[in-house]
Amino acid sequence: MDRLTIIKVGGKVVEDAATLNDLLDHFVRITGNKMLIHGGGSIATEIAARLGIETEMVNGRRITGSAMLDVAVMVYGGLINKRIVAALQARACNAIGLTGADLNLIEARKRPVQEIDYGFVGDVIDVNSSELRLLIAENVVPVVAPLTHDGNGQLLNTNADTIAAELASKLAGYFNVYLFYCFEKKGVLKNSDDDNSVILELDKEHFLDYSKKGIINTGMIPKLENGFRAKRSGVKEVLITNPENMINGRGTRLI
Amino acid sequence: MDRLTIIKVGGKVVEDAATLNDLLDHFVRITGNKMLIHGGGSIATEIAARLGIETEMVNGRRITGSAMLDVAVMVYGGLINKRIVAALQARACNAIGLTGADLNLIEARKRPVQEIDYGFVGDVIDVNSSELRLLIAENVVPVVAPLTHDGNGQLLNTNADTIAAELASKLAGYFNVYLFYCFEKKGVLKNSDDDNSVILELDKEHFLDYSKKGIINTGMIPKLENGFRAKRSGVKEVLITNPENMINGRGTRLI
Repeated sequence: MDRLTIIKVGGKVVEDAATLNDLLDHFVRITGNKMLIHGGGSIATEIAARLGIETEMVNGRRITGSAMLDVAVMVYGGLINKRIVAALQARACNAIGLTGADLNLIEARKRPVQEIDYGFVGDVIDVNSSELRLLIAENVVPVVAPLTHDGNGQLLNTNADTIAAELASKLAGYFNVYLFYCFEKKGVLKNSDDDNSVILELDKEHFLDYSKKGIINTGMIPKLENGFRAKRSGVKEVLITNPENMINGRGTRLI
Repeated sequence: MDRLTIIKVGGKVVEDAATLNDLLDHFVRITGNKMLIHGGGSIATEIAARLGIETEMVNGRRITGSAMLDVAVMVYGGLINKRIVAALQARACNAIGLTGADLNLIEARKRPVQEIDYGFVGDVIDVNSSELRLLIAENVVPVVAPLTHDGNGQLLNTNADTIAAELASKLAGYFNVYLFYCFEKKGVLKNSDDDNSVILELDKEHFLDYSKKGIINTGMIPKLENGFRAKRSGVKEVLITNPENMINGRGTRLI
């Protein structure tokens, strides 16, 4: 099987033009098939504020009302996605921007209301990768925005870390998939005040232990849960890293 | 050669949810290869106003400053494009949303400043259709937003009628292309007060004569110029029509 490198990029890396350009410089140097999944939450929050739409968060998760969904579609599916595509084309990288609705790539269902109504948030049901693989075979580089659809015309906001894990898991049936979660830190830190306290290898047992003890930053927990799930689904390697280290495979390796 | 139907949809047809749904119901009934190009100017104007960005028009053409370009990318490339894609997927039509940057589909250059500085507006230089044709061969239906790029990372706002004509002209080398400009009227009217005064066939000579005499609405002139150019480039048929009549091939036929 061919190698496929999937980079999920989020946080400050995608929100600041200079760091995004750095990331893309590193990204285009990755040889072989590759794919980019991006977030962009704080740009959406900023545009929403300018439109007079309040950002409602519960337990660190965004509530996506209908007005906020439109903002997510505009910012993730339009502004950030197309900026990245144009910037990759300028680097002779034949990018295509996609959401989960395009090519019916990612089917989801609106999260059922339990204690909290998250609004138009999608839980992934299925990934349909046939046309995506056709594009990859033509050296096209997919750039995926964190949006899915329910198959009945409803777009849904979906966590970018989850999308990366779902795509990686599905594509592991066709490629040797390397999944890199790329953000502003060098990896998972043992001490959040020390940027060099990177945990080099992390297994599920230690992850649970560190989470319980509060050693791992709560913001990292969903990312790591997604990463472990991808690893279990046959993804060759899952690495938490930053743009500078991603090309050398340095960071926190999930084992 | 296979048939390819290209529908350009703009004006009120795309801006009102109910008429857009009607259009899409008609669109999915078109047999064979098909493609949709959309506008959406007045939604962009509305979002811009809510963001406090003033819409500057000169001779009926939008001036695209940097803030307005971001709005165009959000609204055309994101909101409208992805809504249409999701709505087509709900109709079992395997749509993919594209801008001119995706797959390097449409290369343009920023319009040179002469008397007027139009800002980030692109004049089309070239269409690269190889991956697009690969997708069409897989029964994928492209949905194209009126955005192009300059190959150096700059996205550009480009008239949707022009994009439709350029794509149709290029694809006429590979398909029997039928290009339908679809808007709220039944065709080109001889009397703007009489919706039934449709000119059934229009040649270049009469077009120039009617334009000079002010019989044809000034807003129609660029659309018709694009249509005649496409016809001259080998497009089989160019029709100005509305959603109800498009499937029966009724409207104003350029000859």
